[in-house]
Parts: sequence; C-alpha cells; structure tokens
Amino acid sequence: MSAESQPGNHASEPPHPPQRDRSSDLIARYQQVRDRSERLADPLSPEDCAAQSMPDASPTKWHLAHTTWFFETFLVEQVLPGYRCFDPGFRVLFNSYYNSVGEQHPRSSRGLLSRPSLDQVLEYRAYVDKRVLGCLEAPGGLSDAQLDAVELGLQHEQQHQELILTDIKHLFSCNPLHPVYQDGPPPVPARVPPLRWHGFDEGMHWIGSSGPGFTFDNETPRHRVFLEAFELASRPVTNGEFLAFIQDGGYARPELWLSDGWATLQTQSWCAPLYWEERDGAWRSLTLSGLREVCPEEPVCHVSHFEADAFARWAGARLPSEAEWELAAGQAPIEGNFVEQELLHPAAATGPAGAGTPLQLFGDVWEWTQSPYAPYPGYQPLTGALGEYNGKFMSNQLVLRGGSCATPRSHIRATYRNYFFPAQRWQFSGIRLARNAC
Amino acid sequence: MSAESQPGNHASEPPHPPQRDRSSDLIARYQQVRDRSERLADPLSPEDCAAQSMPDASPTKWHLAHTTWFFETFLVEQVLPGYRCFDPGFRVLFNSYYNSVGEQHPRSSRGLLSRPSLDQVLEYRAYVDKRVLGCLEAPGGLSDAQLDAVELGLQHEQQHQELILTDIKHLFSCNPLHPVYQDGPPPVPARVPPLRWHGFDEGMHWIGSSGPGFTFDNETPRHRVFLEAFELASRPVTNGEFLAFIQDGGYARPELWLSDGWATLQTQSWCAPLYWEERDGAWRSLTLSGLREVCPEEPVCHVSHFEADAFARWAGARLPSEAEWELAAGQAPIEGNFVEQELLHPAAATGPAGAGTPLQLFGDVWEWTQSPYAPYPGYQPLTGALGEYNGKFMSNQLVLRGGSCATPRSHIRATYRNYFFPAQRWQFSGIRLARNAC
Amino acid sequence: MSAESQPGNHASEPPHPPQRDRSSDLIARYQQVRDRSERLADPLSPEDCAAQSMPDASPTKWHLAHTTWFFETFLVEQVLPGYRCFDPGFRVLFNSYYNSVGEQHPRSSRGLLSRPSLDQVLEYRAYVDKRVLGCLEAPGGLSDAQLDAVELGLQHEQQHQELILTDIKHLFSCNPLHPVYQDGPPPVPARVPPLRWHGFDEGMHWIGSSGPGFTFDNETPRHRVFLEAFELASRPVTNGEFLAFIQDGGYARPELWLSDGWATLQTQSWCAPLYWEERDGAWRSLTLSGLREVCPEEPVCHVSHFEADAFARWAGARLPSEAEWELAAGQAPIEGNFVEQELLHPAAATGPAGAGTPLQLFGDVWEWTQSPYAPYPGYQPLTGALGEYNGKFMSNQLVLRGGSCATPRSHIRATYRNYFFPAQRWQFSGIRLARNAC
Amino acid sequence: MSAESQPGNHASEPPHPPQRDRSSDLIARYQQVRDRSERLADPLSPEDCAAQSMPDASPTKWHLAHTTWFFETFLVEQVLPGYRCFDPGFRVLFNSYYNSVGEQHPRSSRGLLSRPSLDQVLEYRAYVDKRVLGCLEAPGGLSDAQLDAVELGLQHEQQHQELILTDIKHLFSCNPLHPVYQDGPPPVPARVPPLRWHGFDEGMHWIGSSGPGFTFDNETPRHRVFLEAFELASRPVTNGEFLAFIQDGGYARPELWLSDGWATLQTQSWCAPLYWEERDGAWRSLTLSGLREVCPEEPVCHVSHFEADAFARWAGARLPSEAEWELAAGQAPIEGNFVEQELLHPAAATGPAGAGTPLQLFGDVWEWTQSPYAPYPGYQPLTGALGEYNGKFMSNQLVLRGGSCATPRSHIRATYRNYFFPAQRWQFSGIRLARNAC
Repeated sequence: MSAESQPGNHASEPPHPPQRDRSSDLIARYQQVRDRSERLADPLSPEDCAAQSMPDASPTKWHLAHTTWFFETFLVEQVLPGYRCFDPGFRVLFNSYYNSVGEQHPRSSRGLLSRPSLDQVLEYRAYVDKRVLGCLEAPGGLSDAQLDAVELGLQHEQQHQELILTDIKHLFSCNPLHPVYQDGPPPVPARVPPLRWHGFDEGMHWIGSSGPGFTFDNETPRHRVFLEAFELASRPVTNGEFLAFIQDGGYARPELWLSDGWATLQTQSWCAPLYWEERDGAWRSLTLSGLREVCPEEPVCHVSHFEADAFARWAGARLPSEAEWELAAGQAPIEGNFVEQELLHPAAATGPAGAGTPLQLFGDVWEWTQSPYAPYPGYQPLTGALGEYNGKFMSNQLVLRGGSCATPRSHIRATYRNYFFPAQRWQFSGIRLARNAC
Repeated sequence: MSAESQPGNHASEPPHPPQRDRSSDLIARYQQVRDRSERLADPLSPEDCAAQSMPDASPTKWHLAHTTWFFETFLVEQVLPGYRCFDPGFRVLFNSYYNSVGEQHPRSSRGLLSRPSLDQVLEYRAYVDKRVLGCLEAPGGLSDAQLDAVELGLQHEQQHQELILTDIKHLFSCNPLHPVYQDGPPPVPARVPPLRWHGFDEGMHWIGSSGPGFTFDNETPRHRVFLEAFELASRPVTNGEFLAFIQDGGYARPELWLSDGWATLQTQSWCAPLYWEERDGAWRSLTLSGLREVCPEEPVCHVSHFEADAFARWAGARLPSEAEWELAAGQAPIEGNFVEQELLHPAAATGPAGAGTPLQLFGDVWEWTQSPYAPYPGYQPLTGALGEYNGKFMSNQLVLRGGSCATPRSHIRATYRNYFFPAQRWQFSGIRLARNAC
Repeated sequence: MSAESQPGNHASEPPHPPQRDRSSDLIARYQQVRDRSERLADPLSPEDCAAQSMPDASPTKWHLAHTTWFFETFLVEQVLPGYRCFDPGFRVLFNSYYNSVGEQHPRSSRGLLSRPSLDQVLEYRAYVDKRVLGCLEAPGGLSDAQLDAVELGLQHEQQHQELILTDIKHLFSCNPLHPVYQDGPPPVPARVPPLRWHGFDEGMHWIGSSGPGFTFDNETPRHRVFLEAFELASRPVTNGEFLAFIQDGGYARPELWLSDGWATLQTQSWCAPLYWEERDGAWRSLTLSGLREVCPEEPVCHVSHFEADAFARWAGARLPSEAEWELAAGQAPIEGNFVEQELLHPAAATGPAGAGTPLQLFGDVWEWTQSPYAPYPGYQPLTGALGEYNGKFMSNQLVLRGGSCATPRSHIRATYRNYFFPAQRWQFSGIRLARNAC
Repeated sequence: MSAESQPGNHASEPPHPPQRDRSSDLIARYQQVRDRSERLADPLSPEDCAAQSMPDASPTKWHLAHTTWFFETFLVEQVLPGYRCFDPGFRVLFNSYYNSVGEQHPRSSRGLLSRPSLDQVLEYRAYVDKRVLGCLEAPGGLSDAQLDAVELGLQHEQQHQELILTDIKHLFSCNPLHPVYQDGPPPVPARVPPLRWHGFDEGMHWIGSSGPGFTFDNETPRHRVFLEAFELASRPVTNGEFLAFIQDGGYARPELWLSDGWATLQTQSWCAPLYWEERDGAWRSLTLSGLREVCPEEPVCHVSHFEADAFARWAGARLPSEAEWELAAGQAPIEGNFVEQELLHPAAATGPAGAGTPLQLFGDVWEWTQSPYAPYPGYQPLTGALGEYNGKFMSNQLVLRGGSCATPRSHIRATYRNYFFPAQRWQFSGIRLARNAC
C-alpha cells in the first residue's frame, strides 16, 4: 500500500498564501470574474436577459443578481455592521435555495420578474462590488474565513457563468427565429484520431482534494479507494460515432437502456441529442452561433446520462466511475486540449495518435460518469447556511467530470465534481467510454 | 306579437356610410386606435412587455405584434399584390389561433420570445401601418369588404387593448415587488345607493344586432326570444356586499356552489376574489396602481363565474340571462355611469336613487350572465379564416356583458357578447343580480 | 299565441293517484326495479363488480350499494325512528356527492374498496329492501312526500342501471382478453331508410314538464320558448355515414371542430368513436357481446359532443337545440322504434320511408343537443340534500335527449334531460342532425 | 493486504450439488414455495386479490399469475417442445417488464384485469406446476442452466411473496373500513436495550457473493473495497426514537433534509411514517392486523430513504454504506433475532446488552443504506431476457439490506441487495444508524 501512503496530494504546502497577498490576488480576480459575467450579457437584450425557458434554467438577469446576492449575504452582511442593503426585496427574489437564509421566490417563476430591470440589477452589482472591494482593500483586511467566502463567491459566480450560456442556449432554442448569441464562421475541425484505450492497473488510490487550492466541500476529504484494472478511452465520443448509434436503431432498442431511461425516452420522444433536428436526412444542431450542420468530428454534446449509458452499452463498453476518471486525470494536463471559450462549442479531438499522447479530458464536454453523486467517506458540509451549497443535493444525481467548452478555464480541475439529474440534457454534457481490463 | 314585429333595430338606416366618408373615418380611427395601443405600453419596460405570467395571458409585445399581424394577414396581403412581408417568421409567431392561416407558435410559450425585441415590433407596426394607410388613402380605395376588414381589425385591436391591461395586472401580481403601472391617489368613491330592483314584464323581445354599426358575427342574427317576467338589480354588487358573503362563510359552504365551482375552489384554494389578500383582518387588493385597501363602495371585481353564481345564490337571487341583460340595456345610456379609462378600476355606483334613474350597466365591470356562450339561431360565422374569430369558441364558456373600466369606451355596446371560461378571474369581471318576478 | 296558451301538458289530471293505490303500485315497481339491478350483475364475477376503469365510471358493486344508500338515507332514516343502519361506514363509502349528508369516499378510489364484498352488498340491499317494503306496506302508510322519495329512488336506480352497463363496457374494453357480458349472435340490421328532413314552423312552444307523472326537478317548470322554423332528421346518423366522415379526413381538419374539441382530439389522439379499432382497413368495435364488426346500418354510438358537432358541420347541418328536439318528440311515439334492452346495442333505423312515418327519437342512442345544461326559467331545485341531485351540475355540460338501448324503457320520456361533459364518450351517445329551415 | 487475499468466500466448495440431488431438493422447495404463495392469499377475497391501490403495487392475483408466467416463459417454454400455453393472452398480461419477451400490459392498469378470475389463475398455476414438476422428475432431468432457471424462479416468487403482503397492506390502508389481513392479539414487545455502537477498523474487504448458494447477478462479482473505520448501531431505530424526532420538529426543519426529500415532504404532506395517524395526541398505525397503537419498542417502519437520512442527520449520525453493512453482517447470525413471519410486524430489539451480543441485522425491517444501487465492478447481467431482471434498474434507486418481517427466512442473506426509490415507503423499510469512527 506504499504508493497510497501519502495522505494528501500536496501536504507539505501551506493551505493559503499570506493574507495580504491573498487579498491582492482576490481583488484582481474579483474584478475579472465579476466583469466577465457582465460581458457574457453583452450580446443580449434586456428581454433576452429576463426570460426563463424551463424551470431548470434561469434568466441571465437572475444569474447576475443571484451571484451578487451571494456576496451580499455571505460576505457584506457579515462583515459590515449596519450595512444597508440595496433592496430588501432582493433577499427573497435572489435566494436560490438557502432555506437557512429564508424564503425563496419560486424557482419556476423567475422568468416573471420583469422588475427589477437589467439596469437596476447592474446597479445592484455595482453597489455590492463597491462594498466587497472596500472590504478587501481595508487596512485591517478580512479574516481567513471571510477571504474563503470571497473565494467561494467567485467560484460560485464561475459556475453561474456556465449556466448563463447553457440557459441562453436553451432559451434561443425555443425561438423559431433562431437567435444567434455569438456569430462567426463554423470552426474547422481537425481530423479525429482513432479512439484508443489507456490501461490502468488495479490498486489503491487517493481520490479527492486536500488543497492547497480552492475546492468545494464535496471534493473532500481526500480518501482511498480500491479500483480494479480498467481502460479509458483516449477521447470523447464524437457526433459521427453517435450518429452510427442512431442509425443502428439505438433509440428504438429497449435492451440498450436503463429502465428509467427507456421510460424517459418514450415520454419525451427522444430520438437524438437535444438541439438536433433532421431535415431531408441531414442533421443540424442549434448552437450559440445559430443552426449549424452537425460536425461528425466534434464530441457529441447535450446527451443525458441515459443516452450516454445506452451508447456505452451499444458500444460494448461502459461509463467510467468518477474515481477511475480522476485517477486518469491526474496524468492529463489541463492545458492540453483545452478549447478557448470564445468558441463555445466542443472541439474535435486533435493530437497525434502517438503512444505518448495524453488523454484529452478537460474542457470540451462534461463527461457523464456512472457514479451517483454521493458524499465521500467522512464528508462534512460547510457550516451554517453554506452547508446547503452542495450536500443536500446528494440524491438522484450523477457526477460529471472534466469541464466543458463553456466552463471558465480557471474553474477546471481534476477533482471537480459536477452533478446533474440523469435525464437532463441542456448542459454541455458528453460521453467518455471505459471498460474493464481484459 | 306586434311589438316584436320589427325585424331590425334600425332597419331604415343604410348599412354603411358612403365609401369615401367611410375611408376618411377609418383613417382617423385607425391612427387613433393604433396609437392608443402603443400608449398603453408607455409605462412598461421592454422586460415588462415580454413576460407571460400564465398561458391565459400574453405579453404586451405579443399583443402589439399580433394585432399588426391581423391587419397584415387579413388586409395588406389580400390587397397589395406582391406585398413583401416584414418578417416571414412572424406569420407563425403572431398567429393566435387561425388554423386556416397555418401553424401557430404554442400559446403557453409566448413569453419565451425575447426576440423580436420591442423595438422591432414597433418597427413592424410602423411598416404595416404605412401600408394600411396607403390602402385607405389610395384614390381607388378599398372595397366594402376590405373596409370591413379594417373595421374588424380595429375592433380586434381594442379587444387586445383591454387584454394588455388585464395581462400586465396579472404579471405584476406575480412580482413580490408590487410594480405600479399607473400611479396616482386612490379615487374617492361616492356613496353607494341602495340596490333597487327594476322590473320587466314577460314578453317576446328582439335580441342581437342587425346593424347599422359594426357588430361581431356572434351578435347576429337579430332574433326573437320569449322572456318571463324578471327583475334586475340597479347596480353591480359591491366589495362591501361581497365581504359580507366571505364573512358569512361563503367560500366554505358547498351548498352555495355549482359542483365544478366547488371542485375548483378546493383545487385552487380560493377564499376571496383574485388579487385580494388579508393581513391582520384588513383586506387589500393589488391594483394597477399597486396594493390598495379594498374599497367597500366599488363594484367587486376579478371574480369567476363560479363565485358570481355562488354569491347570487347566497343573496337569494340569480345571475341574469344575456337576453334579460340586453333587454334592460336597451334602456340604459352608455354614457351614463361610464368610467374614464384613466382610472382603470371599477367605479363606485353613483347616481341619485330616484325612481327614474337608469340602470348602471356599462363600463365598470364585465358582468357574468348565466348564459353559456352559444350560437344565436341562424348564426353564420364569417367566411374564410375569419370564421375562426368567434364561432369555434362556443363551448364551455359563459357570456359576460357591459364592458369594464379597461374597455375602450367606443368598444362598448348593448349587444356585445364577451365570453370566458367559468373559472377565469383575471378579467375585470363582476356581478349583476337578477331574480324572477314575484 | 293561442297554440301555446295551455300552461300545462295535462293540467286537468290529478297530480297523484290516491295514496293507497300509489303504495301498491310502488311496491310492485320497487321489487321489479331493485331486482333488475341485481340481474344486471348476474353475468359478472365479484372481481368484475369491484373494478373501476376510470374516475368517470364506478364499480357495479358500488352502484348496487349506492342506490341502496339512497333509499336508506332519504327514506328509511327519515321514516323509521331509531333505525339502526346496516353499517355506519357505508354512510361515507356510498355517498356519491351529497355534501349536505356529509363526507364522501373519493370518487376515483371506488375501485379500491375490495371490502365490503359483493355478498355483503347484496345483504345490505336485502336489509334495506325489507325496511322500505315494510314502510310501504304499513297500515298508516307513507306521506305523499315520502312516496315521492320512493319514486325518486326508483328513477335514480334506473339511471344507475344504465351506468352499470356503460361502466362495465368500459371496464371490459380495458382488458385485452375482451370479456363478453352478453353472448349471442350479432343482430341482423334492417336496411336503413334514407335520411329525410321533417319541417317545423316558427312559433312559441311549451317546453318542460308539469306532470302528472314523475319528472326530475330539472325538467320543470314548463315554460314557453320561441323557436325559429327548423328541420330535424328522421333518424340518427349511422356508422356508415360516420365512416364517410372519417374517410373524408374528418379527424384531421381543424376547421370542422370547436376549439376545445380540436384540442381534446389532439390530446387524446382521437381518430374514431370510442371502442372502434381498425385492422387491415376493417373497423371493429368492442361491444357488450365482444369484438364485432362495425355495422354500417346501426346508429353511430360512443361519440363525444365534439365529434357530433364536427360531424354535423361536415354534413352541412347542426345539432338540434333541446327545445327543438322536445317539440319534435311530442309527435313521436315512445314505443315506435324502441329497442329491447336485451340487445344492448343501438338498432338500425327501420320503418318504411312513408311520408307519415314518425320520427325515430327514443331508445337507440342518447342524442347530443347543442344546448348547454342550464336551469329552465324559474327552476327550483328540490329542497334539502336532494337539491344537490341535479342543479349543481348545471355548468359546462350539454343536454342529451331520447334514451339509449341501455336505458330502461319505463325511464324514457320526451322531457327527460340527460347531461354529460362534451368530451365524454363512454355513454351510448349518438348524433341527430338538424338544420335551419330554408 | 493478506486479510483480503482470499478471492471467494467459499471458493473450495463445488458450485452445485450433484444434479440428481439438486433436482430432488428443488422439487421439495418448488412445492413448498409455490404452496406458500397461495396460502398468503387464503385470508383474501377474490376482490381483495384483484385490486391495485397504486401503480407501485400489484394485485395479489397478478403476483400469483406473474410468478407462474415466469416459470412458463423461462423454463417450460424452453424445455418442452410443442408446449401449448395455458392462455396466449397471458403472455402480455403477466409480463412485468421484460421487453425482450414482448409487449406488456400497462403496469398501472393491472387492477382493471377483473378477468382472468382468481380461480382461473389458480388453474393456471396448477397447469404450469404440473409441467415444471414433470420436467424436474423426468429421468433425463434438466440441465444445470435449466435447474438454475428453476432456482431463479423460486427466488423470484419469494420476492413476490413479500410484495403480496406489502401491497395488500397498502390496499387495506385505502379502505376506511380498515380490513384485517391477520387477526390476533398485539405482540408483547420486549424491553429495548440501549443502542450501542460496534466499531470496525479501516481496511480492504471482500464484498459480494461468489456462491456456492444462489445469488442474484447484482450480488456479483465478489470484489474488494476499501473502508474507512466506522461504527454501526447495534439495532434499528425504534418508533420511540422516531417519535422524538417528530416531536423535535423533524418534519418542519429543512436543514435536516436532502433537497429532493424536502420537496417530496412538502408535495406529499408527510408528517410521520406511512400508515401512522394521530388522534388526540396518540399515534396509531395501520398494520396487517388492523389499526394498532404505535409501540415505542418496535423498529420504526415504512419510512422513505429521505426520512431515514433526515433522522440520521438529526441524530448526529448517518446511514451506513452497503459495504459497511455487509461487512458487519458477516459477523451476524441470520437466525439470531429473526422474526417469525406469522407476526408480520417488526419485532422489538431483544437480547441482553452484553458486550458479546451480535448485531441484530436480519428480518425486522429492510434497512436503507446511503448507497445508490449501482453495478459492482465487473458486473455482468444474466444473458438473454433474464438480463433485464436486475441490471436495468441501476438508476435512481438506493440499496436496502437485511430483510424484513415479511421476507421469507430462506430468502435472507448477507449479500442480498434490495433496492427502492428514495421516496417509496410502502415496503417494511426502517433505519440503521452508522457513524465515522472518532
């Protein structure tokens, strides 16, 4: 067990940089992250920012306000005595799901909030930003725990940046006029290398994070798992490969599907990934750049866990467990095949097919694992209201790994656990195959 | 039967003024009506104009575009050869329910149309207005049938003007910030005169319209009905009277309710009219001017047919039939107690309680009748796609009469048949009592 | 107005026979009616009698118990001091919808009542029968009002006899084994005479009942209506005629349908009458005698109001109003084309096509009218709990006239108003055409 | 890793006894198991056996037929050439969920199958029994794979025996008459010993089954897991302890609940375990012996995973993982505290509180674990249609362990994985606490 005897991944490093450096760093990142959220709304009209296309999605305006509410509630109100809030009504309107904080406006009615206007929300952002920055710049500075709250708020806002994009994409898909979020020529995909299998021996492994960088509570504690020998595919499944599944009757063969998946397929009349439509035998897909032909070289995207699982069964493989995925990710450079966010669609797998090629694991599509989202052994949620951030969702959802083309690059890491319900498809979610070692 | 032997109400008048005069008149009215729709949107932000609070309601922007689509489809496209439409996608987006014209965007998804923007819709309006006015001003002019289509389009737009107000009121009621559409001091209601009963003898009567002014097809043909003797209340039921019903357990006594009404009450948890809320024993109501105390002198408003029917039973009375109502309305001046639309809430019944006082029947609240919305004997819908305007809704709805504080004054007439489903409450709908003659 | 000057149809007859004769008559009829209900259950197993196929339908066992509960509640408990009920739990279980009597077991859960057993329900019937007959035979006898309650109970039980048949038919239609209620060879239909039109002049008419026989409260008061001239078809629409509607795309043409009807058709995927199924181009229909070929000569049956209305529009006609129907029925002998109940399916229209042939109006199918079920002018429900019998359902339903092959013959009369919701199809409901006089 | 180096639990034993002995054994067990199913129906009427109280539950008659269909489909049809089935319609009616076999009667409509009658189903059972026994007794005998199918059929039937009891209990709970399945005096519970914690060290462990006895495919393959040190409670949570949770506001405190659990609680208005009702401050529970006072000494039962999880959080503990549970169960004798099925309610925890007391893990209540139902590493479903038995349900469900008072004793084993959805409560499901080692 010697290989696993090291209890932390970087145990010798200090948990945090000195406080003053940390404040400076946070000030810069705060401005950058907060600004990027607003830049995401630049191509959108006030009406675009206000609409909600389904209960799972939220209006852009709500995202902009909620992330602000987060800083206001968990930092400013805690730090500044006598703080006078921007609008007391916002406490309810922009509380997402924190029962400990109080009442919440019903999630499915966020699209009815024509007021406050987008302008007022931007004022709200400026109002809170001023106070957060004031706290960070104050001579006495913030405590470690308060700086942690700032960091959490930034990570939180980065999560919502991805949601802004997925939710706008869904909204635009409901509009027969096919609005375009980001114009430009279609990307020229590289040739896809053949899928290869990377082998991993059985053994004990450390999984999860023990720092020193930021991690969500659900990535901890770092702990040991025993894994049988397995193999992982070198790249995500492509549209071309998924089309072969469709053409082989994949959506009409119950033996390929989980029982709940088959029931969902029938109820929802699924016959292809979300946003795909067939006309005269050709498949097109709605993208943030409008309706485009489905490119066979790109990773398949907007599939549910049920579709990922059925595809894997059809392909004689399976989905990886999150521990398998994380083990492999320890060997994969995050920068490797990462796709610039300006593209906002999954990139084709590039890279020469040489033996030494690293796995391409980050930044194209979130990869469904077969692992239900559950607490790690010894998991402790954050204390107080922030304990509701992650822990209470550990039921009925599945873990996705890797980050997508819509994920901020600095938000991607090997231990990150994203999670969605198995029937959800509006995220940039795709398929990574695994199989047992022969 | 001599009193009824006259087949029309104004049979000696010509059906239409000479064509040139008619065009001039229509030009003036077209500009006035079209302008008023846009004025109704003046207090609203683009987001206000885009949201849809329930499937029954539509966004303001949709109303503005749909009424334009109506002129484009039923006039401009018919009259101008080679007309190039503003946007071909609008043909589907802003078709409400005309199957003969083609596909329709799903009604419940109108709030997802963040595009076209409000500005684009206003451009669309200007684009179509220019062509309609061009047609009206052209030397050759329009045929009688085409002028009829213009007239229908204006009447249609006036209907949507009222809907803009009722739908915005509903939207704002969903927002905990209580937005205000129209500010101002609460009206000072006059003292309500005691309710008196006006008697009508049994006999044959002519009901419905035979012109010469505009009428919808559902108001025709003018025909005879036999009515037993009856009595009609001199004014609508007031909030104060309805409060007595509530305090007498009206919402908890099934014997007062129709079976479907009782089921609806339980499912929807009704305990007061829509928009009412109780706090510390006092009732307030959401109005277009914000949250206001319920004024006991004003006519009760935003009640369903079920509530109107239960109230009438509790009061030892009943709702009038539409024939009874129309018979009485023949004796009531429309100008009498009409309320200025700038007020946008039902007025208190005024007028001295003298024996000769006319009935107050118009312009406060739409009055539920007991009459299901059904075709008059010999009813013929308009030909072509416009046949879908009224006739296909003659199922499961009930007739309301009189017009409300939100109805354009020129849109009110004695033969007008409004209709809604018995559980609907978001219109300015109230209660008029009737009873059999002793 | 001389023709209508007679205020009652049999005003000179006494309202009731002398009380002793009436008791004797009721004893005989009580035994006959109560026995027939149990005979209807003879072909059924205990499981058949316990199942409920949809909320609209009830188990046979429940019908047998509820009709008994009716006599127990509205007669025995009122007449016999200190009456000890058979089982106090039945007061709730078998109360259909009488809020004034107390709580009710939820309607949609009647099929879960495996207890009491069928045998116990038959004991319950015997227990109550003994007491009802005891009351009827007692020397002092019952008061007029109490005898009225017995009569109402018998009429009520006859209504449930028809429901037993329609509900079992629906239950068996849900079973792929196609159980047979009543075996036998298919009837040999007579040739259908061509449809002819009977004309009626405009005029005032008396409608409704003023006795002397039994009538439900909703048939009263007898009152005057003015009818325009109209024509009524000589017989119901046949399966063959309805097939022509199907083959002409009747179920795919929205312009033929009421708006609510079209929505229902799409939601329910209607493409033919209930119980019809097509295989290899041939239509078969599930009957109480099992699956049978659709006979073109028989009246079409198990159509909704929406289908009846669409068919009429397709045929260039309309449905009659209930007043038109009743006017015509005054001239039609009930015995004429009445079908023996042993057949339990609508008969083909027979009768020579001579000029003097009476209309065939009774006993084949319930005929949808265009008349919403509404109170007659001056309508007064029965007093007390029995006031809930009819009046509270006067909302959203439509009147059917004539009686079907499943209606007890003695239960059929010209003034009878049956009523169902426009989308309901599991009754023996068909189509009678009418049209305006040229 | 020496302690875990043993790959199987009984690897030296032969996988099966000699074939002839196996046949004899199976004949005896076949008769015993098949007979017991019918004995379970002895207290029930035909109507009891036919009703279905919710989609999750099935009628007793359906259970009796489906288990027979299982032998017919997976054994008799495979073994006997030219076998003539009892009724071809049963192939669809009694297929539960095997898409590979063909169509299925809709699950939620099983209660509408008044035919075939209970008697016919018993005939069906005899018909198939005769052929199964004929196969088992034939000189040539059955192949190993065929004997495996018999064994699987018996295990399958034992699963349905428990479902017969849980489903009848639910059905009777819907009947206000409170039918009794099994009469008798309430059990006299022993005093509950105080809850103690049993500690387990961290380490690698073998989990799952490698035979030699029967196991379902989902219990295989036997494989290694690494577990942190933990502690397990000595007995299930009692009603008395759960009452303390209720009285402490457990059902009103969102911070104790998973997000989905809290939403379910609100939608379903949960305020106590299923079948509990409060009257005048005292709690009673519907049991198979009728309504009984809640006994504080008995294990709490009919709680969902959500309630179990919330209780554990309230108690400062957590639910065990299934691996933890199975590790502990290796040390617990199945016979120890097993409850006779004749009692049919969870027993109070007995046993002296001495240090050497074994854990009480079997036969009272199914114990919710925190483990989602997922495939073991290397899991392979059975081949052919039987592959649908377990594998396709590995989504959204959670594992329960231990067996309940309604589980046949011979059906209980340490590696057994039962699974239900987290909101389901109608099984005999209870709570076992665990916690991390200090």
